[in-house]
Amino acid sequence: MSVTELRIAIVGFGKIARDQHVGAIAATPGARLAAVASRNASLPDLPHFATIEDLLEKGPPIDAVSLCTPPQVRRAQAAAALAAGKHVMLEKPPGTGVAELDPLIAMAAEAKHTLFATWHSRCAPAVEPAREWLATRRIKSVHINWKEDVRVWHPGQAWIWEPGGLGVFDPGINALSILTRILPRPVFVTAAELAFPANCQAPIAANLTLTDIGGLPVSAEFDFRQTGPQSWDIVAETDQGQMTLSGGGRRMAVDGKAIAEAPDQEYRELYARFVKLAASGESDVDLAPLRLVADAFLLGKRTIVEPFVD
Amino acid sequence: MSVTELRIAIVGFGKIARDQHVGAIAATPGARLAAVASRNASLPDLPHFATIEDLLEKGPPIDAVSLCTPPQVRRAQAAAALAAGKHVMLEKPPGTGVAELDPLIAMAAEAKHTLFATWHSRCAPAVEPAREWLATRRIKSVHINWKEDVRVWHPGQAWIWEPGGLGVFDPGINALSILTRILPRPVFVTAAELAFPANCQAPIAANLTLTDIGGLPVSAEFDFRQTGPQSWDIVAETDQGQMTLSGGGRRMAVDGKAIAEAPDQEYRELYARFVKLAASGESDVDLAPLRLVADAFLLGKRTIVEPFVD
Repeated sequence: MSVTELRIAIVGFGKIARDQHVGAIAATPGARLAAVASRNASLPDLPHFATIEDLLEKGPPIDAVSLCTPPQVRRAQAAAALAAGKHVMLEKPPGTGVAELDPLIAMAAEAKHTLFATWHSRCAPAVEPAREWLATRRIKSVHINWKEDVRVWHPGQAWIWEPGGLGVFDPGINALSILTRILPRPVFVTAAELAFPANCQAPIAANLTLTDIGGLPVSAEFDFRQTGPQSWDIVAETDQGQMTLSGGGRRMAVDGKAIAEAPDQEYRELYARFVKLAASGESDVDLAPLRLVADAFLLGKRTIVEPFVD
Repeated sequence: MSVTELRIAIVGFGKIARDQHVGAIAATPGARLAAVASRNASLPDLPHFATIEDLLEKGPPIDAVSLCTPPQVRRAQAAAALAAGKHVMLEKPPGTGVAELDPLIAMAAEAKHTLFATWHSRCAPAVEPAREWLATRRIKSVHINWKEDVRVWHPGQAWIWEPGGLGVFDPGINALSILTRILPRPVFVTAAELAFPANCQAPIAANLTLTDIGGLPVSAEFDFRQTGPQSWDIVAETDQGQMTLSGGGRRMAVDGKAIAEAPDQEYRELYARFVKLAASGESDVDLAPLRLVADAFLLGKRTIVEPFVD
């Protein structure tokens, strides 16, 4: 395959597309934004289409689509794009269910096209240092504290409260994507409490208890009702001190001493990886974080809390 | 490995162990019931222990355990048995979550011991005839009607209403285990409605919409409140007629004409397979049915219905 630019169309032009994807594509060698498909939004000087079907049928030549739509519609879009011979990048979560990914994985493999289920938080700069540091320590316990104000970070995103929208697990799954990357052994959920607002189909807060085959105690607190300081922290107690991964993976410290810290380049890393994967037609789909969320819903205890009004 | 009898201990001696497992082991060449572990129940002339730990520590020599306990405690029991070098047979559902199976699968593979996650309904006599018949037809739609009276079939089983107990999916997963066996392509859940009694942590009824990569319409109605005639039916409309699989997989008919019917030998088949698997230390763990249930919880719309009192 000759080395050419990967011509990417963004599908779904909401907050995450504008805040992250456009800039990251512009900054990625070998990638170029070639079109936008969105019912409501467009960019100056770029071909624009209302739907992915229109894009694929009438649009300029493209090699790939990056799906930034809500998870509820993404599977059908991914199937259409793969059927049209395009590489596909999925925002997180990769689907509204785990099993819906299987046929997409099979389609991509058969066509030797790339299906890339992204976990942007895994690209936060202190995640790999944390993983390497933990690999040589005996971990005694892990606690996740992931609390943010939904009104600040998800204004008007009604889909997040609909079935399949994940509620507080939309940010919480970022923590789980880091957890499943930095721990040496797979974890699984053993108990969960899910707080559903009386008027919503997705939880606004959740407490999870997890463990691994060795009995490691892992706990997680997710809350969408956090005002004031926001928390995106993972703390591991080890035989060689307390490791703190904070700022959503941007900073790592041991016993309070900074070890790693860098500015966020998560989406640039995702697109650099997408360009590389697409060059060989390889896929990268790790469903471990979504499986943990599905298990939390499956075995969780539900409570009803006061209605949420955006 | 020399040909010897597989000495099996039943762990958890509730309704399913008494109704099915004891008789099936007695009828299976190469298998012998060697002990029982149960807090409350025992069998005459058989070694009895209160817990699986006591069984493994103080019991007679055994080769395998068959876990008939509620799903909430089964993972830890399976891990203990595998660590003690035993083959393990799991009643359905194989766990309270999907991810908890991974470490067990890894343990079994490493030790070359058998982990067998059973789906008894797949052994119903008309399931394989149905699969073979459908394999050469174009399927237009599938409907599952799985409705039974929980008071008749699960008297006093409080665990079924607790987190991880699955509620109506405890029988419903039997239908899904058949569905995922007889259809030519994998299915996934696209929508679900779950009716939770106000006093329960598991649904008493559920409607599912599923499909496959080709867009096959599949629907399922599960209800635990069925009085009068009970329904355990799967109906497939095809280009060559309507196939009905009824009686939980015991009878198959095409356009009303009986094609296959036989008495239930589901558990005998399970134990025959367990003996065979254990002889080579192979495992058989298909998580597809449990994944569908987890996805239904994940993306399902919840409604609250009247409290359930057993």
